[in-house]
Amino acid sequence: MVPKVVINCDMGEGYGNWKMGPDEELMALTDQANIACGFHAGDPTTMMKTVRLAKKHGVVVGAHPGLPDKEGFGRRLMDIPPEDLYCQMLYQVGSLKAMLDVEGVPLNHIKPHGKLYRMIKDDPEVGHACFRAIKTFNVPFVGLPGTAHEELCKEYGVDFHPEFFPDLWYDDMGQTVPILTAGRVPQDQIRPKMDKIIATQQVTSIKGNEATVPFAGRSFTCCVHSDLPGALECIKHVRNAIDEAAASKSAS
Amino acid sequence: MVPKVVINCDMGEGYGNWKMGPDEELMALTDQANIACGFHAGDPTTMMKTVRLAKKHGVVVGAHPGLPDKEGFGRRLMDIPPEDLYCQMLYQVGSLKAMLDVEGVPLNHIKPHGKLYRMIKDDPEVGHACFRAIKTFNVPFVGLPGTAHEELCKEYGVDFHPEFFPDLWYDDMGQTVPILTAGRVPQDQIRPKMDKIIATQQVTSIKGNEATVPFAGRSFTCCVHSDLPGALECIKHVRNAIDEAAASKSAS
Amino acid sequence: MVPKVVINCDMGEGYGNWKMGPDEELMALTDQANIACGFHAGDPTTMMKTVRLAKKHGVVVGAHPGLPDKEGFGRRLMDIPPEDLYCQMLYQVGSLKAMLDVEGVPLNHIKPHGKLYRMIKDDPEVGHACFRAIKTFNVPFVGLPGTAHEELCKEYGVDFHPEFFPDLWYDDMGQTVPILTAGRVPQDQIRPKMDKIIATQQVTSIKGNEATVPFAGRSFTCCVHSDLPGALECIKHVRNAIDEAAASKSAS
Amino acid sequence: MVPKVVINCDMGEGYGNWKMGPDEELMALTDQANIACGFHAGDPTTMMKTVRLAKKHGVVVGAHPGLPDKEGFGRRLMDIPPEDLYCQMLYQVGSLKAMLDVEGVPLNHIKPHGKLYRMIKDDPEVGHACFRAIKTFNVPFVGLPGTAHEELCKEYGVDFHPEFFPDLWYDDMGQTVPILTAGRVPQDQIRPKMDKIIATQQVTSIKGNEATVPFAGRSFTCCVHSDLPGALECIKHVRNAIDEAAASKSAS
Repeated sequence: MVPKVVINCDMGEGYGNWKMGPDEELMALTDQANIACGFHAGDPTTMMKTVRLAKKHGVVVGAHPGLPDKEGFGRRLMDIPPEDLYCQMLYQVGSLKAMLDVEGVPLNHIKPHGKLYRMIKDDPEVGHACFRAIKTFNVPFVGLPGTAHEELCKEYGVDFHPEFFPDLWYDDMGQTVPILTAGRVPQDQIRPKMDKIIATQQVTSIKGNEATVPFAGRSFTCCVHSDLPGALECIKHVRNAIDEAAASKSAS
Repeated sequence: MVPKVVINCDMGEGYGNWKMGPDEELMALTDQANIACGFHAGDPTTMMKTVRLAKKHGVVVGAHPGLPDKEGFGRRLMDIPPEDLYCQMLYQVGSLKAMLDVEGVPLNHIKPHGKLYRMIKDDPEVGHACFRAIKTFNVPFVGLPGTAHEELCKEYGVDFHPEFFPDLWYDDMGQTVPILTAGRVPQDQIRPKMDKIIATQQVTSIKGNEATVPFAGRSFTCCVHSDLPGALECIKHVRNAIDEAAASKSAS
Repeated sequence: MVPKVVINCDMGEGYGNWKMGPDEELMALTDQANIACGFHAGDPTTMMKTVRLAKKHGVVVGAHPGLPDKEGFGRRLMDIPPEDLYCQMLYQVGSLKAMLDVEGVPLNHIKPHGKLYRMIKDDPEVGHACFRAIKTFNVPFVGLPGTAHEELCKEYGVDFHPEFFPDLWYDDMGQTVPILTAGRVPQDQIRPKMDKIIATQQVTSIKGNEATVPFAGRSFTCCVHSDLPGALECIKHVRNAIDEAAASKSAS
Repeated sequence: MVPKVVINCDMGEGYGNWKMGPDEELMALTDQANIACGFHAGDPTTMMKTVRLAKKHGVVVGAHPGLPDKEGFGRRLMDIPPEDLYCQMLYQVGSLKAMLDVEGVPLNHIKPHGKLYRMIKDDPEVGHACFRAIKTFNVPFVGLPGTAHEELCKEYGVDFHPEFFPDLWYDDMGQTVPILTAGRVPQDQIRPKMDKIIATQQVTSIKGNEATVPFAGRSFTCCVHSDLPGALECIKHVRNAIDEAAASKSAS
């Protein structure tokens, strides 16, 4: 079976009158929308608008829960007791689910945001607390292959959907290097990077070496950051790479 | 059929380290817990603790959504667009429902808090916005009989559970008088007031007249405010009145 | 003495990672910056950045306090007790003042934001509560001429700086018509409107009549909304009208 | 000169309708009130009430700034960039100062709260960021003797007021042991502990050894936690120890 490559975008990351990414334009180009749940970003009205926008475009919807820190956009470490994180995960995903139910849209997956996404991977207590909550929703988890994300999925019986970051650098082990350390991949390198990962599941690492991302032949989803500059240009490169690869495959 | 009288208490109205009512003691004496959903009070951890406390005591759980205003405890009028209130209602009840699902506790009812409870009754646009959300949860609404609460339930096909306030004064029409206008009924008058409402569905109004509360022979639920002074003394009067009436009935 | 016409802009209305107006570009074109104080918008870091930006451009700084409601951007009525508003006014202006003191920038004026600006004018209890706080800072108040803003200034011994809104419609009494009622003045009418108000202190009202804004020959300040679309185009029209009028005056 | 021993209490740590400590009773027994500034606890109205209560009792007032985290009561580590903490310190102390100015009460000192108090001591970047802000207020800093608190005061030219914790355990170096590690000193040991520290500036350590708290013969202030159980009993022990020592000294 040929692995499938799709796109996911963090969406609904405005707050009240404040906008974040160009959600309307991105929604037309993405396959999956991860909707913020009101902790690091979003509010009930923004959530519902984004659910409806996704529905209109036939885009599947995942929950995008984060740390309770709008001022830091969920990107600052907070030393929150695991039991509190467990309850917060239930709270956030539950709040989105009520809106999805009303709109007749199924919950497709869960992908935590920013620092929480990292903490789940790096801090076992946080990881277990969050997965105790995540498994109750019976949907796949989107995360980093070859990390504790994948191990936790196995342990908790949660489907794992590996994720690729077109605008992040990778190290020689095929793991992402944080933006604060390495910056982002320039726009003109996104397309060749996409062509390569689709064809070989490999990247040229930040050190210039060939590195295999541990997708192990599986399908994967490419994350486009809606809140960073150049989101629209980036998603077009990713979309074109995916669509042209699929077209050439079906043609052959 | 003999109308049944039960007790409901607003619960889980602390926030972080801040406590509000004596939830532990009240839970042993109430039949129904209305759990705050994090907008006017409460947070995910407090909600979950309160769900578990209710479960332990065999107390049924309702959602207690409020205005997004912790600093004002949901008691200050806020001119929020109806569509926003619709989304907020879904958000709040959905967040609680995720916790109930995990604990295997059904959602029993919805009873809005404070100013939102009043706005639903007094402002038709608010009422419709909230009921569009409420009806999607398929549980009864707890509200004031003979008001728009009851009419909205009919219109939206939502079961209506009428509510009695043992510590509020009633006017000659059998309607509550706000605390800010009339203060509260003294503790030593709670028991006789309860005995009377159970026996006759009538109260002595604030003007000293006999007034019929429009329960129309139906069962009703008595609200004990957990956040006000004397909550424990009040609930004991209410509990004893109900239990002794039931005992004398079953004896006869 | 020839009345002077200047420009004021609401600034620092981002929150955390969220941006609002094009502050950098506007700061180069405005004379006065009203800096949000963290209640309806802003946070300490945004405030300090905006203070430094104003200082760099030689723009004087006023406080822009608002209702405690980020989700509603301070534009929703909230029924807050006057004594609370009094304390909130002290809190917000005091917080900005500490930053100004550190940067050696004087507090130039106070101009409340959004719904609070209107409530001060329309609700006497709110007006008195806020002015009890405002007068303690010993700086002018920017407000609407011919309204309670002006009367309260007189009563409390606060200097009154009348304000003009280039993008709002005016009624036949020379008073502003809310955006929600009448929308905004199109960009191509801003310049003629500015030329006229500078020359005659009059406007063509929304009904097409000549209306005198009650500036009574005094200097005034023109508000450019930084958070609305077209802010940069609008401020350029206003800036050019003011600068060309001044140039032609000094040439004659 | 005989070292003076006084008492400080964290006050105004309620939030909206939520109360924390028994401020009214404590105010009659303390010498210094550290008033929360709305980040970890407190709100403008609570701050002003607490300022007035202190004024009524002739209690001097210090600022008690904390991390921006009401849900965690400022006790959870947050990885906030130092420049943000700098701005937050100015914001919080400035907001209190506006209230003190209006009430004619001088700002007496600054004592950060909870985790921020610890971070200033343990993280040099945080320490410098906060002291750059603290020094601008020209008042003493209350902190732990023999730690970076004291060194930072020297470096920034800020008066240092060493603090003693009657209800915390001390290690053999005369430093406090966190409550989470060691719990609190039982009430019946508070009085002997106070008598000893007043007489000798020594404590019996948690290991049972004699330990010298590095007051070096200086005056110090004893912190009574208003938010912990037994606050009133604790402060009475401390008050009596201080007053009786002073009386016996003046008698001799």
